[in-house]
Amino acid sequence: MADEVVLLDFWPSPFGMRLRIALAEKGVKYEYRDEDLRNKSPLLLQSNPVHKKIPVLIHKGKPVCESLIALQYIDEVWNHKAPLLPTDPYLRSQARFWADFVDKKFYDLGTKTWTTKGEEQEAAKKEFIDCIKLLEVELGDKPFFGGETLGFVDVTLVPFYTWLSAYEKFGNFSVEPECPKFIAWVKRCLEKESVSKSLPGQDKVYDFVVELRKKRGME
Amino acid sequence: MADEVVLLDFWPSPFGMRLRIALAEKGVKYEYRDEDLRNKSPLLLQSNPVHKKIPVLIHKGKPVCESLIALQYIDEVWNHKAPLLPTDPYLRSQARFWADFVDKKFYDLGTKTWTTKGEEQEAAKKEFIDCIKLLEVELGDKPFFGGETLGFVDVTLVPFYTWLSAYEKFGNFSVEPECPKFIAWVKRCLEKESVSKSLPGQDKVYDFVVELRKKRGME
Repeated sequence: MADEVVLLDFWPSPFGMRLRIALAEKGVKYEYRDEDLRNKSPLLLQSNPVHKKIPVLIHKGKPVCESLIALQYIDEVWNHKAPLLPTDPYLRSQARFWADFVDKKFYDLGTKTWTTKGEEQEAAKKEFIDCIKLLEVELGDKPFFGGETLGFVDVTLVPFYTWLSAYEKFGNFSVEPECPKFIAWVKRCLEKESVSKSLPGQDKVYDFVVELRKKRGME
Repeated sequence: MADEVVLLDFWPSPFGMRLRIALAEKGVKYEYRDEDLRNKSPLLLQSNPVHKKIPVLIHKGKPVCESLIALQYIDEVWNHKAPLLPTDPYLRSQARFWADFVDKKFYDLGTKTWTTKGEEQEAAKKEFIDCIKLLEVELGDKPFFGGETLGFVDVTLVPFYTWLSAYEKFGNFSVEPECPKFIAWVKRCLEKESVSKSLPGQDKVYDFVVELRKKRGME
């Protein structure tokens, strides 16, 4: 099984979900291994000795770490179908820019909507909405960030939808009234089996966050 | 001048230096514009409305932001010489991983060596050295991270050498005795004109840091 693909992942991870969607889009079969992050497997520690984080894509015994890097690896190795990045260098740079924006801004702000309180939380909610509005502008009138088909930014961003219900309930705010275009885009993504079958339900993630908050001693 | 290349930069920025080296390696002529970061130019604000940061590479009137993304853009557009990324997808993923590591770990720890005090500073210095040692292992017996020639990781990392003297003086520590292989690698890089002509001297950066500390009210 020298050609085998193994994904070290943790089911509520939006970063892991990116790789699940990309592998599904490319039609790549793989072995899914759900990690216990409080008791990481020797394979995870050996495959990602620097960050010790999931997801790790292992292909032919070689590990690729960091989800955006693994997405590009998948796109380059299985280049026969469903390209994630466009071919034009400028369009590629723009797709990379917005994926990087999701990692640097969207993710952190999303997390702050349910981990902070008071003024800090109010500011995070506002900035989070502003962040989605910027993404809506980038989406423009295209069905997907990738154009007519799912692309690099779509695959990078859509997994966070599974956390949105938790953000909204614990942040006491609602995204859809302010960002209807974003939600319409999510729904278009979810019509694709590669997406819908790769993502857990919002309820399941919400229950996970409830447990996480208990463990962290959060009210 | 529709084909012109403009670099919006700030001379002590290690991120900007990356692009200067890459453009020199590729033999691309460009107009260099040094920004006053306390009074950013309308062109900078318009070219990078999201982060409002240098460096920005403007090619044919279109801006590319974020240094690692701009490096890849340069590598893809001027692909006739001095390739930065290898062609093999796995080797590409590894180069991207270590460049990302420089951004996520090396840069932050380097900054902490001169902006923190006491225990925090001691921990940062130790982690910074550990970080360089990890990079030394990755370098192995190769002359450059890119192998026989300067590659993506070399161009990403070597600009920080210009800050090393400031890190060491204000952190009261010395890198060379602990990481001689790293310093030997820096010296090999500096033998290349594309590197030496793109970087300011350590003394100049040190003087800049002295001024910066005064402005921030640091002793």
